[in-house]
Amino acid sequence: MELRVIGQKAKDASFLLGKMGSAEKNRGLLAAAQEILDQQEKILAANAIDIEHAKAKGMAQGLVDRLLLTSARIDGIVEGMRQVVGLEDPIGEVISMKQRPNGMMVGQKRVPLGVIGIIYEARPNVTADAFALCFKTGNAVILRGGSDAIHSNQAIVAVIRDGLRKCGIPEDAIQLLSDTSRETATEFMRLNGYLDVLIPRGGAGLIRSVVQNSTVPVIETGTGNCHIYVDETADFDMALDILFNAKTQRIGVCNACESTLIHRSIAKDFLPMMKNRLDEKQVEIRADEEACAIIPEFVKATEEDWGTEYLDYIMSCKIVDSVDEAIAHINKYNTGHSEAIITSDYDNAQKFLNEVDAAAVYVNASTRFTDGFEFGFGAEIGISTQKLHARGPMGLLALTSTKYIIYGNGQIRK
Amino acid sequence: MELRVIGQKAKDASFLLGKMGSAEKNRGLLAAAQEILDQQEKILAANAIDIEHAKAKGMAQGLVDRLLLTSARIDGIVEGMRQVVGLEDPIGEVISMKQRPNGMMVGQKRVPLGVIGIIYEARPNVTADAFALCFKTGNAVILRGGSDAIHSNQAIVAVIRDGLRKCGIPEDAIQLLSDTSRETATEFMRLNGYLDVLIPRGGAGLIRSVVQNSTVPVIETGTGNCHIYVDETADFDMALDILFNAKTQRIGVCNACESTLIHRSIAKDFLPMMKNRLDEKQVEIRADEEACAIIPEFVKATEEDWGTEYLDYIMSCKIVDSVDEAIAHINKYNTGHSEAIITSDYDNAQKFLNEVDAAAVYVNASTRFTDGFEFGFGAEIGISTQKLHARGPMGLLALTSTKYIIYGNGQIRK
Repeated sequence: MELRVIGQKAKDASFLLGKMGSAEKNRGLLAAAQEILDQQEKILAANAIDIEHAKAKGMAQGLVDRLLLTSARIDGIVEGMRQVVGLEDPIGEVISMKQRPNGMMVGQKRVPLGVIGIIYEARPNVTADAFALCFKTGNAVILRGGSDAIHSNQAIVAVIRDGLRKCGIPEDAIQLLSDTSRETATEFMRLNGYLDVLIPRGGAGLIRSVVQNSTVPVIETGTGNCHIYVDETADFDMALDILFNAKTQRIGVCNACESTLIHRSIAKDFLPMMKNRLDEKQVEIRADEEACAIIPEFVKATEEDWGTEYLDYIMSCKIVDSVDEAIAHINKYNTGHSEAIITSDYDNAQKFLNEVDAAAVYVNASTRFTDGFEFGFGAEIGISTQKLHARGPMGLLALTSTKYIIYGNGQIRK
Repeated sequence: MELRVIGQKAKDASFLLGKMGSAEKNRGLLAAAQEILDQQEKILAANAIDIEHAKAKGMAQGLVDRLLLTSARIDGIVEGMRQVVGLEDPIGEVISMKQRPNGMMVGQKRVPLGVIGIIYEARPNVTADAFALCFKTGNAVILRGGSDAIHSNQAIVAVIRDGLRKCGIPEDAIQLLSDTSRETATEFMRLNGYLDVLIPRGGAGLIRSVVQNSTVPVIETGTGNCHIYVDETADFDMALDILFNAKTQRIGVCNACESTLIHRSIAKDFLPMMKNRLDEKQVEIRADEEACAIIPEFVKATEEDWGTEYLDYIMSCKIVDSVDEAIAHINKYNTGHSEAIITSDYDNAQKFLNEVDAAAVYVNASTRFTDGFEFGFGAEIGISTQKLHARGPMGLLALTSTKYIIYGNGQIRK
């Protein structure tokens, strides 16, 4: 189908969704979730085709696992959708209303964004998840998933549309691009006038491509070259626990620690303890010369290491003279995601919080907490690393806009 | 100078500006304003060169007037900068802080966007104005003004930098691209990693070009195809006053009315009165067949008229059957700027406010109020017609982002 036809259908649906109250939207969500349960055989059969194709083309085991749906995983998807029902609906709230000197009342009201495009890779769970969050906030969504998951995605979307149709809700609240070609993706990124925003979810390559090619407003999500600075006044046990957690609890995620900065005055004492602790998970440390002089087993770091998001059991390590040097290094090499200081010094804690330029800045806690659920939003559509519109974990509020509403009684401008 | 060098200088300056308190920023603003007064001869001399070139190349009188600086206009620029000093500084405010179940405190703090790019046309007053708003919010700004104003802009920027330098503030808080070529503009729009946002200020062509070419996040400002719907229950006098004001008070602005929709049941009575009132300013009415049948002097409208922002003494006019038809027409043809209903019916007022998709929706007031000063922000950097980040008139708040700040005492993720 022509993209502009899909765009117009989404736009038409968005006007209807924008008028719905929370009760009606929740009814639609529950119906869609129930339909996924009821028609899970259809979804699993479609997924089996994707899995077969993936194995035939030699897809890596980790990726095949992300693509795989099981009955238990479908339960998880359904449970996730039902949890969204329980979240507070931000739409319709009037967040300010003030009287102007001429008597006119000027207020600001939360409204849906309108039509949201999501471009993602071969993770079929994103399909239902993104729909639930967009739908709850009154937005129509157009999904463009990876070609490896196309059968799974088509089945999930068809089933959700069945559920919506059964309770009289416009099924074009969710549409999937069945053409997964690169050309169509590029055309999708330029669907101005229909798409209000495009959110890419996936690896650095996907996100870069969307940022480079899109003329529609994009929310850049993404890569995390996260640092932990261990200050001279740090509690060593706390620093070791946090470093170990942030580096090894889950290595493939954007809020994992990729680099540590150690204050010179504690390096000789701290580095051997850090090595011992990270040896438990065979973490390779790539360090500057001075750290390598203390721990000869460290690998010598290159300039490239300071800017690398490993997503692996590897961490870079640099010795610094002060919190100022740590902040300058972080602001030079980070990706604006999550940064932490371990300290017991009040001034250094405040300085780090104030001066580090990132979506989330921590004192004495693991960077792994940068997450919509951990922050208490009850949902997450992604983690924004840009400064416009939304920064950090994005919950339902990030899927809303505002409009000014003005109550007058005949005011004209002088 | 190479663009990335300019970008790096701005980024370095932005880190210093982000640390400044309001008192220091206000001191810088006052020093820059004073310097403009003190060195106004230099600015006027530079402007005289631009004016001479403009006249030599036959620039239209209206554009020459917008380019012209006089001693009185410089007083106005200085006065505007001093007013920004009096505005509340939004930076540093912690807008939320909640405790998580694990004891960690998660808060959100207002911070500058960082580096803001402004692309604008030959209006030298924008140079000082944009600087003042960006600087007040701790942002570094890189300006790319039109080639016709290059001497004026260079003089203003040099003088502002003198003022900043004299009080020890990094002068790279403001930089101007001296190369006004199209190629450099395009390169500027792709300065990812240095520019946090790009704001185009100017006509539809400029804005379209920035949206099409930019890979940096853009705030689209802009065009306004604004409608006024006169409901069957409208007070005719109020409707006439508001229509006259919105259409004719200032024709070349984005919040002027370009189209009116009239309820069928009042058309025969209202249209002659409307014609009489708008005849005072010789407004040409381009109307649908039915309206033309009532008033033969109306010009017959084409499909193109419904989507046209005239910025002239011309207005389109259509007869509709209901508030629903009015809303559907507006949501089809508008540019998401400002829309008004004139009514005394409660339900129709609420329906219009809820269902019209625009930055500002009015009941019984002129669309001309969509403006940062009229809304009480004390400033305006532009009027956003997109839904992301900021919508409607943008004051200081639109030039800020947030970051999450987290106070822990050793929390790790389970």
